[in-house]
Amino acid sequence: MAQETKVKVVAGGGLVDRRVFLKKGMTFSVAALVSESLLASTDESRLAWMSQPGESFSNYGQPSEHERQTIRWTMANRMAPGNGVSWTPLHDLEGTITPNGLHFERHHNGVPQIDPKQHQLLIHGAVKKPLVFDMGALMRYPMTSVMGFIECGGNSNAGWRDQPIQTKVGYFHGMASCSEWTGVPLRILLNEAKMRGRAKWMIAEGADAAMMNVSIPLEKAMDDCILALYQNGERIRPENGYPLRLITPGWEGVLNVKWLRRLHLTNRPVMARNETSKYTELLPSGKARQFTFVMDAKSLITSPSFGYMLQQAGLYQISGLAWSGRGKIIKVEVSADGGKTWAEAELQTPVLAKCFTRFRIPWQWNGQSASIQSRATDETGYVQPKRQALLAERGKHGVFHYNAIVCWEISKNGEVSHVYG
Amino acid sequence: MAQETKVKVVAGGGLVDRRVFLKKGMTFSVAALVSESLLASTDESRLAWMSQPGESFSNYGQPSEHERQTIRWTMANRMAPGNGVSWTPLHDLEGTITPNGLHFERHHNGVPQIDPKQHQLLIHGAVKKPLVFDMGALMRYPMTSVMGFIECGGNSNAGWRDQPIQTKVGYFHGMASCSEWTGVPLRILLNEAKMRGRAKWMIAEGADAAMMNVSIPLEKAMDDCILALYQNGERIRPENGYPLRLITPGWEGVLNVKWLRRLHLTNRPVMARNETSKYTELLPSGKARQFTFVMDAKSLITSPSFGYMLQQAGLYQISGLAWSGRGKIIKVEVSADGGKTWAEAELQTPVLAKCFTRFRIPWQWNGQSASIQSRATDETGYVQPKRQALLAERGKHGVFHYNAIVCWEISKNGEVSHVYG
Repeated sequence: MAQETKVKVVAGGGLVDRRVFLKKGMTFSVAALVSESLLASTDESRLAWMSQPGESFSNYGQPSEHERQTIRWTMANRMAPGNGVSWTPLHDLEGTITPNGLHFERHHNGVPQIDPKQHQLLIHGAVKKPLVFDMGALMRYPMTSVMGFIECGGNSNAGWRDQPIQTKVGYFHGMASCSEWTGVPLRILLNEAKMRGRAKWMIAEGADAAMMNVSIPLEKAMDDCILALYQNGERIRPENGYPLRLITPGWEGVLNVKWLRRLHLTNRPVMARNETSKYTELLPSGKARQFTFVMDAKSLITSPSFGYMLQQAGLYQISGLAWSGRGKIIKVEVSADGGKTWAEAELQTPVLAKCFTRFRIPWQWNGQSASIQSRATDETGYVQPKRQALLAERGKHGVFHYNAIVCWEISKNGEVSHVYG
Repeated sequence: MAQETKVKVVAGGGLVDRRVFLKKGMTFSVAALVSESLLASTDESRLAWMSQPGESFSNYGQPSEHERQTIRWTMANRMAPGNGVSWTPLHDLEGTITPNGLHFERHHNGVPQIDPKQHQLLIHGAVKKPLVFDMGALMRYPMTSVMGFIECGGNSNAGWRDQPIQTKVGYFHGMASCSEWTGVPLRILLNEAKMRGRAKWMIAEGADAAMMNVSIPLEKAMDDCILALYQNGERIRPENGYPLRLITPGWEGVLNVKWLRRLHLTNRPVMARNETSKYTELLPSGKARQFTFVMDAKSLITSPSFGYMLQQAGLYQISGLAWSGRGKIIKVEVSADGGKTWAEAELQTPVLAKCFTRFRIPWQWNGQSASIQSRATDETGYVQPKRQALLAERGKHGVFHYNAIVCWEISKNGEVSHVYG
């Protein structure tokens, strides 16, 4: 790279001040110089798309044929094809929004094909007025919108393995996605049902054939839960809960019950399959944690990441995502020298609570082997832990809630691999 | 509606304080009361989707079959099918994001099917270093993201007609959509090309067969323009400019050049078709305005709007969108008595500059005929005009930049129609 001006180094391994990109005279060798005489000889007619009219309008658009590799990668149980996951390809995406077609999936018994005219939501149990709502009735209620992530409690669980998994970042950490959800604040409907004093928990149940259900403390239900009808502007898609999904901001994915059909108010949790045998975490003591609702702060570098090949030494932008179920991300630090020194990345604004936050920092790669990693801090002061610290606290058999720092190693030839830092 | 508590009226015609929805004891008659004995007799097996496993995972999701009516409505020139528009169905959407499949289209010669490996961006003219970038090179550059609207200069132009058009709000005002755009800040590339002193304008040209081109003042190019590669997280779709689109925040849609192939730096505008015979506005004086880049503040109520049928008197939430090309929306006022009194709606946070802003306010419809309308104010103090004021200033033959207040009339039987206020 033709480096024409001095850059301000902000940490070891080549992390440089973000204003480097704004300097006049800063150049990348990646653009080719051209001469005007060469331009004059350009023959547009060789390009099919410039020599004939293009395709017509479409009622509903689709991605380019040239982007067919950008998919949710699926891992389903062969014996029970509706039980499995599909990952958001975080390595192919930029910004913070996940397009609806690429939002991760986690199903327990497949995607029910619900006729919204026959679907109802029931609120009953410890209430004075049990209520039933059809979708038309719910559309009458006041709505609110919130931009937020959903992350499966089992996301990133390959991190518990003894050897670092060598796979693209989306197929390792992509059971996390981010959307604008719009729907009815749950507290309005619970108020209308007039809860009894003994109501302390809410059992939420979906209309899939598994009747997937979980217990949620009433305090959360009355705080910021939403009965979502819309995702990123349009009605929620079948695999994300059409026609109705419970949004439980910042809490583990399984609590964001899809195809929501029933809210049962009770004085205690129901002890369902997915809060006892699953979505609990075995600790070194032999006991298991239960009801570990909140998703702790996490961050990861998406570019460069596993599968990238850096072509040459020079200036790069390190880019990644951070989020916390406890509120806003206040800081993402990046290290390019294996964790010895750190520099603060720039956060894309607005930074929203319980939402993906994009971070970026310039990095001058010197063409030697290097190790890059990121570390998030949220507004409660919680700092994303090193892997050794997480293992010391939680052992290696917890399965869920893996949120340790992720390290990528760049070899001399520019290849990126996953390492434990 | 069973109204159990007092509500605070904030303006005529039934506009009430937004906290009405948070009051305990507030109920809607739209939910049905049920008995527990009825519940016990519920037979889930009658529902196909609860008695058999659901559909499998999908690599790229699609909307529900039951939402097929939510489409971009197309109006193309029969003699030149690639010349026309398709509208975002704003009446079917909520929140602020437009899903990529429903972003409005305006094409001059169809949608080119570009092979990104053959596509290049050229920067030349009044520069010391003419540069050419392939898409791989551009991906190496630092990126930034911005949430923002794009609105066609010709949006809402049915408003100039003598009689109010009776059509759904999206097919009247839906040449406006909102996305998160991610790409390379243009100033970085212009700096790299080393502009000469005579460079005052930038001619941006697309790679469609029309080679659609427009002139943009260099000051704007150096301010906040982005060479976008991503829309709402994924690579831009063909109809929105794949593989590269110029984003010109807050300025009229035609300046957000799709399939961007060339930026020619010059000392004056090129006087292209789309800045002379089109996208200029004939004034009452007989002269025409030219280079009316900025989209002025606009707002409209999307719910209820034309095509809605209110079923009964009672409490409703009025919901709509506001935006301004000059910056942030600071206020949206709503009137439910034909413009005599106004109350401030709640704005969905975060309120972002040059971005859709969702507004909402509760409204108690008394079952009589009523007229509702909204009025936006942006951070420069600009107030959305009444139709008469707009006509007095601009006449009726300007075609472009129609942004007057929109009025909906609700009849006694609940039918909503479009009226001029």
